[in-house]
Amino acid sequence: MPVNLNVPAAESLFVVDGLEMGYAMAQIRKPNRKDVLVVRVAEGSSVAGVFTKNRFCAAPVQICQANLKAGKGIRALVVNTGCANAGTGERGLADARATTAKVAELLGVQAEQILVFSTGVILENLPMDRLLLGINQAVAGLGKANWLDAATAIMTTDTLPKASSSKLKVGTGEITITGVSKGAGMIRPNMATMLGYLATDATIAQPVLEKWTTAIADASFNRITIDGDTSTNDSFVVIATGKSMAVNIQTGNEPEAAAVLEAMKVESIKLAQAIVRDGEGATKFITVKVEQAGTEEEALKVAYAIGHSPLVKTAFFASDPNLGRILAAVGYAGIEDLDQTKIQLYLGDVYVAQNGGRHPDYREEQGQAVMNDAEITVRVQLGRGIASTTVWTTDFSHEYVTINADYRS
Amino acid sequence: MPVNLNVPAAESLFVVDGLEMGYAMAQIRKPNRKDVLVVRVAEGSSVAGVFTKNRFCAAPVQICQANLKAGKGIRALVVNTGCANAGTGERGLADARATTAKVAELLGVQAEQILVFSTGVILENLPMDRLLLGINQAVAGLGKANWLDAATAIMTTDTLPKASSSKLKVGTGEITITGVSKGAGMIRPNMATMLGYLATDATIAQPVLEKWTTAIADASFNRITIDGDTSTNDSFVVIATGKSMAVNIQTGNEPEAAAVLEAMKVESIKLAQAIVRDGEGATKFITVKVEQAGTEEEALKVAYAIGHSPLVKTAFFASDPNLGRILAAVGYAGIEDLDQTKIQLYLGDVYVAQNGGRHPDYREEQGQAVMNDAEITVRVQLGRGIASTTVWTTDFSHEYVTINADYRS
Repeated sequence: MPVNLNVPAAESLFVVDGLEMGYAMAQIRKPNRKDVLVVRVAEGSSVAGVFTKNRFCAAPVQICQANLKAGKGIRALVVNTGCANAGTGERGLADARATTAKVAELLGVQAEQILVFSTGVILENLPMDRLLLGINQAVAGLGKANWLDAATAIMTTDTLPKASSSKLKVGTGEITITGVSKGAGMIRPNMATMLGYLATDATIAQPVLEKWTTAIADASFNRITIDGDTSTNDSFVVIATGKSMAVNIQTGNEPEAAAVLEAMKVESIKLAQAIVRDGEGATKFITVKVEQAGTEEEALKVAYAIGHSPLVKTAFFASDPNLGRILAAVGYAGIEDLDQTKIQLYLGDVYVAQNGGRHPDYREEQGQAVMNDAEITVRVQLGRGIASTTVWTTDFSHEYVTINADYRS
Repeated sequence: MPVNLNVPAAESLFVVDGLEMGYAMAQIRKPNRKDVLVVRVAEGSSVAGVFTKNRFCAAPVQICQANLKAGKGIRALVVNTGCANAGTGERGLADARATTAKVAELLGVQAEQILVFSTGVILENLPMDRLLLGINQAVAGLGKANWLDAATAIMTTDTLPKASSSKLKVGTGEITITGVSKGAGMIRPNMATMLGYLATDATIAQPVLEKWTTAIADASFNRITIDGDTSTNDSFVVIATGKSMAVNIQTGNEPEAAAVLEAMKVESIKLAQAIVRDGEGATKFITVKVEQAGTEEEALKVAYAIGHSPLVKTAFFASDPNLGRILAAVGYAGIEDLDQTKIQLYLGDVYVAQNGGRHPDYREEQGQAVMNDAEITVRVQLGRGIASTTVWTTDFSHEYVTINADYRS
C-alpha cells in the first residue's frame, strides 16, 4: 500500500505542446501490460539528462550519454520495461543501437537523435523481435500525449502510475510542466532503478537546461532512497519544447528564470517523493533532515546512514520509537571527528536526545505518538556548522522482502 | 533457524587456566536469563581489545579503552546484556564507572583494572540497582570457567550460544584456545553488536598481543556483516593468561609464533562465522570472495556492496539466481574507474558472467542448483590487480524484519 499516494486524475496532467506519445503491449516480459513507450519530441527542443553513476551502467544508458553528447538534437525517446539490458556486454549495446535505429527509421531522423531507456531484470538480453514489433505499434499510434498512459507504460514493480503536472503564470503568459516517474526498489541517489521524465513547453536554451537538470535532480531524485541499491539504468531526462514563448530563457539570468526552475524542481520533488511513497513494501514516508553539519556532504552521509539502516527501517515499520538505532546510524555515518555530546535528535516535534543522551523530559509515549503516523520526520542536529540536507525514504517491511524475493517469478 | 550451527558440547570447550567465571540472572531487561557475567583474570595476564569505530560508541567502550590505556593490568571483565548503556551521556559514563568500581571492590583490585561491556537496547539507562546486585551474585559464584554458560550469559537476539575451542601442540607442550561470541544483528565490521572474547593459556607479551588482536579481528570479526549496521558497543578482547609455558612469545618472531597466531585466528573465524550463521533471520550462509582487485580496500568495498545489498540478500533468501543484482552492486561499490568489461562472476563453481556480460554457456538451472544450497560462495574477479578478500554474510528474510520489528517488545 503506497503511503498517501493515489493514481493521478488524467485531466490533472496537462498536455505539453511539442510532444506526441505512443505505446505498445510488446510482451517484453509479461503479457497484457503496456511495456513500450515512444515519445516524439518536436524539432528544436532542448533535451538534457542525468544518469546512474553505477559503473555497471546498462547499454541504453551508455547510448543515451553518447547521443546527448553528439548534440544533433533529440527527436524521440523510447522506453521498455521488463528487461534492463544491463550486464549484456557487446550484444546489449548492439541491441540498444538497433532500438534507436528502428525508431529513427520510422520517424525519419537519425539514430543519434533517439534516447533509449530500459528497466527490469538485469543480465538478460532484450527480446528484440518483440521489442521491434512493439516499436512499430507504438510509433503507429503516436498522438496527443496521454501522460497517465505514459506513467503506466514505464511501471515495473510500481503499484501506481506516478505523474505530476502544473501550470505557471510567468513572463508574458503561462507555461506547462508535466512529468512521470517510476520506482520502486533499488532506489538511492545517483540514481535509482528510477526513470524520470519532466517536460515543459517553456523555451530554455540547451546549455541552461543541462545545468538546470543537474540542479533539479540534486533537489529531488538524488535525495531519495529506498534500499540503498543504485541501479544500472537510472535516468532523468528533462525536455523543453520551446512551444511556448511566455518565457525565453537563454542565459538563466532572466528575471523569470528562478521561478521556472523552482516550478520544475517542485514537480520533480513530487515525482521523486511519489517513488518513495510507492517504495517496495513501504508503509511509512520518512523525511530525514540533518542540520548543523560542517558540509552538505557530511549532512548527506548522516542522512543516508539513517535512511539505509535496516535496523532503523524495521523500527519504523514496527512504529517502535527505538531511537537509539538512529543515534547508532549517526555514529557510523563516517564522520571521523563527530562529537556525540553535541548531537540533538528530534522525532517530529519531540526532543528525544539532547547532547547525545536521552532528553530528561522525553517520555516514550511521545515518541510512540509520532511513530504511529504514516509520515514521520526525523531531525538530527550535529552541532558542527550550518550545512543541512533533507532525504526521503521508507520503512522496511515484510512486504519488501516478499516483493524482492519474488520479483522474477 | 541458524545455518549449520549447533549448541557446542560443554565438554568440547576446554578450560583456560587462569580464568574464573561467575554469572547472575539480574533481570536487567528480562527475567530468568543469565544476563551478567564476571570473568576474573589471573594476575600477569596480557589483555588487548579492539572496539567499535562508531562515533556514538557506548559508555562502556569508552571506559574499556581508557582502562586498557592505563596499563595497570586487567584483572576482570564484566558483561551485561539487555541494556547497551549507549546514548546515555554523562550518566552512562558514571554508571559504567560505578560498575567497574563495584567489581574492583569485590575482587580487591583497582577500578582501572576492570573491563566493562554492555549490549542491548540503546538510549536507555542501566538499572544500576539490579546490575550491582547481579555483580555481587556473579562474583560470589566465581569458579572454574564454564564457557557454555559464558556464551549463554552474553546472548541477546542470538538463538544459540556461540563458543569454540581447540588445543594446539606447540613448543614444549600444548596450549588451549577457547572463545565465545554473540551477534546477531547490527553486524558489520569495525565492528558489530558483537561481543567476542578469546582466551589462551599461552604466554604472550602485552605488545605482541595488542598487535595480534588487530590482526585476528581483521581476519575474522571485521570480515562479517549481517545488515551493515555498526553497533555502538562492539568489542573483541583477547586474553593470554600465561599459565602455560609451552610457548613464551615475547617478540612475535619466535619460531612457534606463527602457529599460535594462526590457531587463534582459526578459532576467531569460527566465532565470527557463528555470528553470521545465527544472523537475524538467516537462512543462508554466504561467502563473498572478491579477487583481482587493485587494493584490499577496493576488494572490501565490492565485497560489502554485495554483502549489504538488500536486493542481493532477498534474492538469496528466495534462492533466486538473480545475478544481475550482484553485478549492479559491484557497479555501485564506489570504484570510479571500474571497467565492467573486465568483470567475471562465479556462483559456486558456475561461471555466470564473463567480461561483464552473461556467459554464453550459462544456463539458469546451473545458477539455481547453487542457489538451492544453504551455503553459497559468490566470487567476483575485477581484473584490476592481485588483491583479494573474503567476507561472510547472510540472506535477508522475513524473519529478519520480524525480529527487528519486535526486538524491544
